[in-house]
Amino acid sequence: MIRFESDYTEGAHERIMKRLMETNEEQTPGYGMDEHCERARAYIRKACHVEEADIHFLVGGTQTNTTIISSILRPHQGAVAAITGHIAIHETGAIEATGHKVLTLPSDDGKIQAKQVKKLYDAHWNDATHEHMVQPGLVYISHPTENGTTYSKSELEALSKVCRECGLPLVMDGARLGYGLSAKDNDLSLADIASLCDVFYIGGTKIGALMGEAVVIINNALKKDFRYSIKQHGGMLAKGRLLGIQFETLFEDGLYYEISKHAVNMAMMIREAFAEEGFSFRYDSTTNQQFPILPNEVLSKLSEKYSYSFWEKVDAKHTAVRFCTSWATKKENVEMLIKDSKALHKLESRRYHS
Amino acid sequence: MIRFESDYTEGAHERIMKRLMETNEEQTPGYGMDEHCERARAYIRKACHVEEADIHFLVGGTQTNTTIISSILRPHQGAVAAITGHIAIHETGAIEATGHKVLTLPSDDGKIQAKQVKKLYDAHWNDATHEHMVQPGLVYISHPTENGTTYSKSELEALSKVCRECGLPLVMDGARLGYGLSAKDNDLSLADIASLCDVFYIGGTKIGALMGEAVVIINNALKKDFRYSIKQHGGMLAKGRLLGIQFETLFEDGLYYEISKHAVNMAMMIREAFAEEGFSFRYDSTTNQQFPILPNEVLSKLSEKYSYSFWEKVDAKHTAVRFCTSWATKKENVEMLIKDSKALHKLESRRYHS
Amino acid sequence: MIRFESDYTEGAHERIMKRLMETNEEQTPGYGMDEHCERARAYIRKACHVEEADIHFLVGGTQTNTTIISSILRPHQGAVAAITGHIAIHETGAIEATGHKVLTLPSDDGKIQAKQVKKLYDAHWNDATHEHMVQPGLVYISHPTENGTTYSKSELEALSKVCRECGLPLVMDGARLGYGLSAKDNDLSLADIASLCDVFYIGGTKIGALMGEAVVIINNALKKDFRYSIKQHGGMLAKGRLLGIQFETLFEDGLYYEISKHAVNMAMMIREAFAEEGFSFRYDSTTNQQFPILPNEVLSKLSEKYSYSFWEKVDAKHTAVRFCTSWATKKENVEMLIKDSKALHKLESRRYHS
Amino acid sequence: MIRFESDYTEGAHERIMKRLMETNEEQTPGYGMDEHCERARAYIRKACHVEEADIHFLVGGTQTNTTIISSILRPHQGAVAAITGHIAIHETGAIEATGHKVLTLPSDDGKIQAKQVKKLYDAHWNDATHEHMVQPGLVYISHPTENGTTYSKSELEALSKVCRECGLPLVMDGARLGYGLSAKDNDLSLADIASLCDVFYIGGTKIGALMGEAVVIINNALKKDFRYSIKQHGGMLAKGRLLGIQFETLFEDGLYYEISKHAVNMAMMIREAFAEEGFSFRYDSTTNQQFPILPNEVLSKLSEKYSYSFWEKVDAKHTAVRFCTSWATKKENVEMLIKDSKALHKLESRRYHS
Repeated sequence: MIRFESDYTEGAHERIMKRLMETNEEQTPGYGMDEHCERARAYIRKACHVEEADIHFLVGGTQTNTTIISSILRPHQGAVAAITGHIAIHETGAIEATGHKVLTLPSDDGKIQAKQVKKLYDAHWNDATHEHMVQPGLVYISHPTENGTTYSKSELEALSKVCRECGLPLVMDGARLGYGLSAKDNDLSLADIASLCDVFYIGGTKIGALMGEAVVIINNALKKDFRYSIKQHGGMLAKGRLLGIQFETLFEDGLYYEISKHAVNMAMMIREAFAEEGFSFRYDSTTNQQFPILPNEVLSKLSEKYSYSFWEKVDAKHTAVRFCTSWATKKENVEMLIKDSKALHKLESRRYHS
Repeated sequence: MIRFESDYTEGAHERIMKRLMETNEEQTPGYGMDEHCERARAYIRKACHVEEADIHFLVGGTQTNTTIISSILRPHQGAVAAITGHIAIHETGAIEATGHKVLTLPSDDGKIQAKQVKKLYDAHWNDATHEHMVQPGLVYISHPTENGTTYSKSELEALSKVCRECGLPLVMDGARLGYGLSAKDNDLSLADIASLCDVFYIGGTKIGALMGEAVVIINNALKKDFRYSIKQHGGMLAKGRLLGIQFETLFEDGLYYEISKHAVNMAMMIREAFAEEGFSFRYDSTTNQQFPILPNEVLSKLSEKYSYSFWEKVDAKHTAVRFCTSWATKKENVEMLIKDSKALHKLESRRYHS
Repeated sequence: MIRFESDYTEGAHERIMKRLMETNEEQTPGYGMDEHCERARAYIRKACHVEEADIHFLVGGTQTNTTIISSILRPHQGAVAAITGHIAIHETGAIEATGHKVLTLPSDDGKIQAKQVKKLYDAHWNDATHEHMVQPGLVYISHPTENGTTYSKSELEALSKVCRECGLPLVMDGARLGYGLSAKDNDLSLADIASLCDVFYIGGTKIGALMGEAVVIINNALKKDFRYSIKQHGGMLAKGRLLGIQFETLFEDGLYYEISKHAVNMAMMIREAFAEEGFSFRYDSTTNQQFPILPNEVLSKLSEKYSYSFWEKVDAKHTAVRFCTSWATKKENVEMLIKDSKALHKLESRRYHS
Repeated sequence: MIRFESDYTEGAHERIMKRLMETNEEQTPGYGMDEHCERARAYIRKACHVEEADIHFLVGGTQTNTTIISSILRPHQGAVAAITGHIAIHETGAIEATGHKVLTLPSDDGKIQAKQVKKLYDAHWNDATHEHMVQPGLVYISHPTENGTTYSKSELEALSKVCRECGLPLVMDGARLGYGLSAKDNDLSLADIASLCDVFYIGGTKIGALMGEAVVIINNALKKDFRYSIKQHGGMLAKGRLLGIQFETLFEDGLYYEISKHAVNMAMMIREAFAEEGFSFRYDSTTNQQFPILPNEVLSKLSEKYSYSFWEKVDAKHTAVRFCTSWATKKENVEMLIKDSKALHKLESRRYHS
């Protein structure tokens, strides 16, 4: 089985594994207070162009979202998010488990717009009984989104502007951030993101690391006592240096960008191949997740050799599915997938026309 | 600096690192549904002599305690624990953050006794206004305790008996379980623990693994929907196979016991050396944590070369400290510590007597 | 100002006030353990035809919903409700504050249908990654709904059947239950409701009492430890007899139904008057809340003398508003409202046509 | 049965009942936005000498404590309280249910001292791993305490000073505040309390009202969005005017103090009578709760005619019990209790000596 079902099917990038081996016998203090973490923080601060950013390393995405959001909100506040947002649907109610409602905005492609946030904010405060409703307390976006789409710089600027006008911290889930930064049409830098968001994180789990998410807190008002929140939510890894070593490796000389770029290139090969065959796509993704709408018969055959994720039934004969590439995707596997898909499509077309 | 401050100062056992390297390019499904996890589960079930046990792999201790306890309790129930218990003092209120009080029992050495549990249980139910108080809902113990002490088989049998009579699930925090099973005076096997507890976990973070705790659920009534709880508490590692690979390595041929034994041996060397010098100990620990009460002047000198944990001020001139050994502790470092301690003690004694 | 803005603008029915005066100097035990509560429970059990129902008296609706729902659900479960449901929008996230997501179903009139519940249930369990999502744990409906609409017997039977097939307790918010039971087209009795729901409550606050909601637990599995839940959520009134006395008065000889009927009659007068004028209604309500769509100019004039609730802007010139009647509504006030509305409409029509 | 078991055995003071009757047909807006609430707020502000205090009316004590405390704390913070404090033992873990630990200080009489708070605060911040522990976030005291004892002005000043130095809001549970203000040795005024506490509440349930607690927020930083917190915790009474009317009546001309004084006088009669008989007391209470230690045989006989609360077993033959008086206590009942107690004591003494 060749796996395209997710972007976490392998271990870690070989340079990370090598570094973990080399440092294995080092003795360090625990809980992220070691020199590897310090160096990784310095690299990330530099990449963000924010010397005074607070950087914390957590293990996984759900944990990171919960830790950030519950640290920011007061009990009567909620997190504004796209209805497709990871916190809204795929974290088993982790945000609600910390007492907060996710206030969802309609979205098909996974993105939300500045004007939607403003409208929700105004609707709340213009309601005479607003204290009977959950108060919007922050805005959560994913970049790239769960659907592979990305925010342009102007879209993010507009969101950021509205958020600041409304006093709503803007939080970016960057579980796949590298893949967004490597998209062909991307016009955002890490420094832009740092200047437009209040808190964001740089995903490692899906981009080269065994596990790990680097939280970057830009807004001073949100920095206080964040380590308490990490510990309370079970995110303070005893051997914190494991996260430090990995992010050190990813950010010391651009490895993070390099492997992100590879994944996007692989995804574009898949995209172009399916497009050439005349297939359409559920979302217009320029990142490592591709959502072609394929004939069920082609899918059925493909699934004997390749794994992918079921996304959504489109009609009686077609299904939208997700193919993920990653830093670890092998070009020969992508080529094989393309070749097999084309052959199956041709076969299916013949049968259909005969 | 030679570190004895904790049992998580190094990476992982070399055989685990080797296995992680070998499997690094394998493609597997995520979230613990891979074959490594399955094999690790089989090894652990066999070691516990319980074929139908549910085994789940989580990342760290606080997360594991929270996930287990919040999965078991109803909202008005609390977890009974020693006042020294990890959940009572060192998890930033993680249990309370899930809505539950920790009902503490007095303890000096970290252990609680069956009769204490019975008394608390009876006090609750005999109170006419018991619904105004938190209902005891489970009993949490650590074995070994946070103070290095252990339960004997008869003590655990008594606890288990009372818990079953009272309908209170017995949960064992085994973050350092291997070190308990390797203590010289230990008369408990994993199978005993499995037959006496409702849920327990086998710590990997402190015993050879990069990270990881293996939860063993024996009581059928507590198995339902546990994976939801893991996900909600951020413990469902995307690359779950990392935990599977590590526990597979630890349990396939006894590595877990072997390295635990080494740590205990190293601890006993330290213990005997301090005892020979006439020092007393804060707790009577037979496991990898030793708590000698040392003269402040000796400590001050030692701290230039060795790290240890401050535990508690004993009097104006003496302090109880903690020295931890682990699977990774080097014998030459222990010997150096002993030699230096003896020399410092001699020096200090001379100064004192002169 | 003559108030039609809500159904809680006055104190309590005179017979309740009289009874509170008569019993004022009685000495009783606290927390609902007095004889008035016992008698009220007996009356309600009889009205429900369920001798073994557990009956508890709480103070207000939000508290009651929170207490019931948090008592039933496990932490990873959510409450299925109409998107218009009180728990979904008007309780400041009280359900989320106990850790649970409200899983909303689309609804315009406030009702949900059996097939919607089944579809949501199936979608959850058919999803391969269902443990990454909140599990449906109960179904919450309001009867009458927040929009004044009601369930027919066959609709409630269908919902109940699906809920039982899916193992989802059916919870009915009956804050305005009397007004539903008194609707002209109602074919449900309290006994029907008791046989079809697992838990429901009989609203007192909006129907004759100073405050108070009587929770009726039919399903034995949900009875355990409910008083703990009441106390934890601040709903255990010290002078519990106040609630007992009020429900005793409401249920000893049919006062509850009698005053509910009055409110519905008053609402029907308003409805018919607006209908005669050719106005349409936002919802087809047969209960004490009426939602006419009125010209803004008429509304503006009316608001000088009458209070009502803004509901929703319909177009540039029309607004849907809510007029509430209650047990306390005076017929002369309704007649005056009708007369004034008709006059204003005529005036506005003339201006418009001239 | 003549009841001394609690201070909530009757309804409300006759003047309150009269006022509720007189206003019963008035139409008012809901949720505390009516004129009665406004007037009551004005009276209380005046009594506190703080024009800009925020005043909110809630229904009961557990609800009030939960609403205040959860509104103030961040998720990783806890409430410092005496181990005997109501929030620590008698609210079914309501504080924990909002995610917060109660950090208990030892206390026998129910009071805590400034130096205890300072010590706990310093211990937290001096601990190198303080982020692994719950951070003290506010200090909660009861005045009078659950044991009937009171803080002197100098004690409260000392507490307030330490709290301000440590940045810990001082919250006073004044469920029985009137009884404290009426104690013979009291040297605190409402204005003193307002100047020394950040938030406190004036209990109505136990002092003349059917129900109701008036929260007074002095510290501006704690005022924001408090009504959201009330609503979320189910404390926003639909007919809020009921609370306004009651506090209006209690505070318009000193009724609150007058009836509090009566209760204390009645308690002193009981205290003196038991003291004359040579009985000792569990706590040195100068308020409406008295805790004599009585022979079991005397208690057994007394319980045929009088109710009281069991407090604690003292020895094989003696038990500490609680007798409560209140605004409603009848002097003839107190006299009868005294007479009967003396007679029983004489009888018992004779039997013992014969």
